[in-house]
Amino acid sequence: MTDIRTAALKTPVDVAEYLFTRLHQIGVRSVHGVPGDYNLVALDYLDKAGLKWVGNVNELNAGYAADGYARVKGISAIMTTFGVGELSAINAIAGAYSEHVPVVHIVGTPSTLSQKDGMLLHHTLGNGNFNVFSDMNKEISCSMAKLEDAIEAAPLIDHTLQQCWIQSRPVYITLPTDMVQKKVEGERLKTPIDLRYPDNDPAKEDYVVEVVLKYLLAARNPIILVDACAIRHKVLEEVHDLIAKTGLPVFVTPMGKGAVNETHPTYGGVYAGDGSQPEVKEFVEASDLILTIGAIKSDFNTAGFSYKTSQLNTIDFHSTHVTVRYSEYPGVSMRGVLRKVIQQVDMSKLSAVPGPKMKNKVKENEDNSETITQAWFWPRAGEFLKENDIIVTETGTSNFGIWETKFPKGVTALSQVLWGSIGYSVGACQGAALAARDAGLKHRTILFVGDGSLQLTAQEISTMVRLNLKPIIFVICNEGFTIERFIHGMDAVYNDIAPWQFKELPRVFGAPEGKVKTYQVKTKAQVHQLLEDKQFSAAEVLQFVELYIPKKDAPRALKLTAEASAKTNAKQ
Amino acid sequence: MTDIRTAALKTPVDVAEYLFTRLHQIGVRSVHGVPGDYNLVALDYLDKAGLKWVGNVNELNAGYAADGYARVKGISAIMTTFGVGELSAINAIAGAYSEHVPVVHIVGTPSTLSQKDGMLLHHTLGNGNFNVFSDMNKEISCSMAKLEDAIEAAPLIDHTLQQCWIQSRPVYITLPTDMVQKKVEGERLKTPIDLRYPDNDPAKEDYVVEVVLKYLLAARNPIILVDACAIRHKVLEEVHDLIAKTGLPVFVTPMGKGAVNETHPTYGGVYAGDGSQPEVKEFVEASDLILTIGAIKSDFNTAGFSYKTSQLNTIDFHSTHVTVRYSEYPGVSMRGVLRKVIQQVDMSKLSAVPGPKMKNKVKENEDNSETITQAWFWPRAGEFLKENDIIVTETGTSNFGIWETKFPKGVTALSQVLWGSIGYSVGACQGAALAARDAGLKHRTILFVGDGSLQLTAQEISTMVRLNLKPIIFVICNEGFTIERFIHGMDAVYNDIAPWQFKELPRVFGAPEGKVKTYQVKTKAQVHQLLEDKQFSAAEVLQFVELYIPKKDAPRALKLTAEASAKTNAKQ
Repeated sequence: MTDIRTAALKTPVDVAEYLFTRLHQIGVRSVHGVPGDYNLVALDYLDKAGLKWVGNVNELNAGYAADGYARVKGISAIMTTFGVGELSAINAIAGAYSEHVPVVHIVGTPSTLSQKDGMLLHHTLGNGNFNVFSDMNKEISCSMAKLEDAIEAAPLIDHTLQQCWIQSRPVYITLPTDMVQKKVEGERLKTPIDLRYPDNDPAKEDYVVEVVLKYLLAARNPIILVDACAIRHKVLEEVHDLIAKTGLPVFVTPMGKGAVNETHPTYGGVYAGDGSQPEVKEFVEASDLILTIGAIKSDFNTAGFSYKTSQLNTIDFHSTHVTVRYSEYPGVSMRGVLRKVIQQVDMSKLSAVPGPKMKNKVKENEDNSETITQAWFWPRAGEFLKENDIIVTETGTSNFGIWETKFPKGVTALSQVLWGSIGYSVGACQGAALAARDAGLKHRTILFVGDGSLQLTAQEISTMVRLNLKPIIFVICNEGFTIERFIHGMDAVYNDIAPWQFKELPRVFGAPEGKVKTYQVKTKAQVHQLLEDKQFSAAEVLQFVELYIPKKDAPRALKLTAEASAKTNAKQ
Repeated sequence: MTDIRTAALKTPVDVAEYLFTRLHQIGVRSVHGVPGDYNLVALDYLDKAGLKWVGNVNELNAGYAADGYARVKGISAIMTTFGVGELSAINAIAGAYSEHVPVVHIVGTPSTLSQKDGMLLHHTLGNGNFNVFSDMNKEISCSMAKLEDAIEAAPLIDHTLQQCWIQSRPVYITLPTDMVQKKVEGERLKTPIDLRYPDNDPAKEDYVVEVVLKYLLAARNPIILVDACAIRHKVLEEVHDLIAKTGLPVFVTPMGKGAVNETHPTYGGVYAGDGSQPEVKEFVEASDLILTIGAIKSDFNTAGFSYKTSQLNTIDFHSTHVTVRYSEYPGVSMRGVLRKVIQQVDMSKLSAVPGPKMKNKVKENEDNSETITQAWFWPRAGEFLKENDIIVTETGTSNFGIWETKFPKGVTALSQVLWGSIGYSVGACQGAALAARDAGLKHRTILFVGDGSLQLTAQEISTMVRLNLKPIIFVICNEGFTIERFIHGMDAVYNDIAPWQFKELPRVFGAPEGKVKTYQVKTKAQVHQLLEDKQFSAAEVLQFVELYIPKKDAPRALKLTAEASAKTNAKQ
């Protein structure tokens, strides 16, 4: 049925083909999601565009996986079905919004005709309102495209994908069943979407650079503190150049773990207020100028708002503005400013005082017992890591413990310190491992997750098995929600969980003989033995480790943060 | 810290105690949910109010379970934590809204002080907006209460719980951490919340009754068709009285399954347009007056809008209005009208023509093969059922197959025909089984779920195990999403799933030796043997059955409905 509009197109392509081709162009290779009748026809177009369908076990897991994929590959996509599917994923999408992760969420919806007629279809509220679910997504999407008209579809797709990349946040696209095969102009596909970040106004940028340099050169002991948005808004090249050029001591926040090369001679460790190692806390808080790059000063990222630093001694670099002490410079993005600061800083006038050096304190945390402790384990894990590993840590003891782990060069770290949705890491691990493979990288993906959190999303291990991914999964078996215990209810039954046979999960979820190896470690000696095993380290099949740690043991920083949270919650 | 307000209270009780006591008064005995730091302190109050904490494996499952619990016990409650928890449950809450199920959703939120200060807390979007998630709930809650002030808290709670019951839809209550222990007037608790349904305006009601009776007595072959809202808005007593008094042939829709006593002599089976048995279709469509009670004429409830009945021959009874032919009577609820019709109908003038009789067509669906077919299995399952069983069927082959199953007396049937979120039934099964036990009933709970759907929510079996519930779980092993195959992509990989070792799930999820029995049945003979086994039938432990049916086999009605859906989706 070639209509007059289609006849006017030079190279007619179907909307679904156009959308998926664009996804491929911006770096997506696998699309996460769950099939549903409002997206089935669209799924037929994936192959042609060079995309693979993941087929997750449920939509929340798919959302977490898409988040993990984007953090490794730069951007990701998830496809769900109207109502039931998209709402199951919405927590993951909100998390991606909160944590600045670019996820393209495509929802297959009922046809535009059914919507206009207000038909009483399945997956609706039964009230003819087809906008409820898209409305729910407004505050957690940086851009939305409802593809309801073939004329607008192509430019809308391009604009939305561009915003996803540039703002580094989720976008929401609805694809009604009757739009999948509508024709749009394929010629547009020859011109890639412009993903360049907009330049700052040069005069404004120069002004800010001058102010920054003035304070930087006047400082006696300036330092650099790198946080999450430096990773998400893709300024790590600038960050590394700044470190290399200035030789300033550099620290990361918990959410900034993995942002800098931790083997760099001036790397000092994690700064998170009272949660820091004492020498780090002392050094950072004595600094008279902290250059924070991409800061998100949330409770869990600051060990309960325990920074003892002053805004008077701080310059904050953000993707949308720069703040020098109390002076705000809206509309000036850090990228250009950092680049010019690197170029222009007069090294002869810069004071770079050497700071503490981060190391994996294994010996220091040994005790007379064979019991594995949180304090001992995390530095020990650091010695096991290799260059370019991808480390996923769950909210709970893992993402606090990892503060004490020094990374080799090139490590990518994933965690959800701000959004903190338990279960996230299991999906994210699948997405991250797949992203690495899609990018042609041989990097290991290593997951640290507690037994309580694992239970929420455990079945995503089945997707890892089906896709033949080979992560190393450490399940910290400590009988429940340890982070909650430290906030409230140390012995409360609501912080307990069902006792699962954890290491049998991969097999039950479909792993054939020889495709999975499982381990159980209960002593420090067993940890040493496992982590020194070359075959284990080679990670040639999916590996699953039950790691036993006492239930009332927690990383130092977790205890502090939990205590602060309990106080904030109770404050009258 | 007794302040002046508290001193003025006769019997001061904490907000959390007040809320939970009210829940207990209206019939809740177990509260579903997942702990999170913004709800922990409140959870300490459950015991005192006589409530048990379920502690689900994740929030979506908890939401499904709460839905199942409410369908059996009349009302239910779920408690989640701000942001991450509530959003994970939102699909289940939307489902309860769509399907008219009264679920009280309580969200533990950051303290009112933290919210006013716009603190950068975990579980937020990082933008200081604490209203985003409650806003998302507006369209899927019939009433909301943000407990931000002790003065208003008690009346707000009462009003919200009343609306939940009367409107039979979810309500949303936020409980900030600093409000948990604020004092409210405990004297109010001596007066139960008024859960009586509002009476109709008597003059208006009498008018409608007169119109209804006029058409009813004039009809030659009137019938009764009972649908979901008759169950949800609790008029089943009126329905049964109407059937008993009039002796009219009665049918149910798919969503009405379980509404009427199927052993009643005038029960004829399921009517769903072209999806009905031929004799039912013929009889219903020849009727000159259909009294539909609580109708939801959605696509999947009507086999793809295939009713061949006329509104000219229909009287629709709803909770909020009655429609006689094309005349609408808004604000007149069915309850009072039905009661008066029962009282006033002149039996000497009523024409009740006997209709078809429903039976389990086992023999009729036998074939020469030992392969278990959908056509054969569902009637066969009917012969296994007992009085008062609770039957949960998943969206897919199960909730279409069950149309062919004749129920014994007193069966309660749960399915989600309108919302249709796959995975629902596993959570709902947990909630239903617990509700029965909480009500002191020995009813069996029997779940029929497909292998694809089970994977979404499988870990809720662990909650069943932990609570020592004893459902019988039939997993239809047919290698994926059969309903999707019939809509689109019969052989598409996106409709395939990972091959799990299904029957090992209960053990891996913590079932000790002797607390679970598992079975695998692949032939008709094995089905017979299992279903005739008295020990199996006694359901004294959790039982898990792998039931193998070919992947491209589906109930007749599913095929018709899927075909209609595919057409609706494609329509230009």
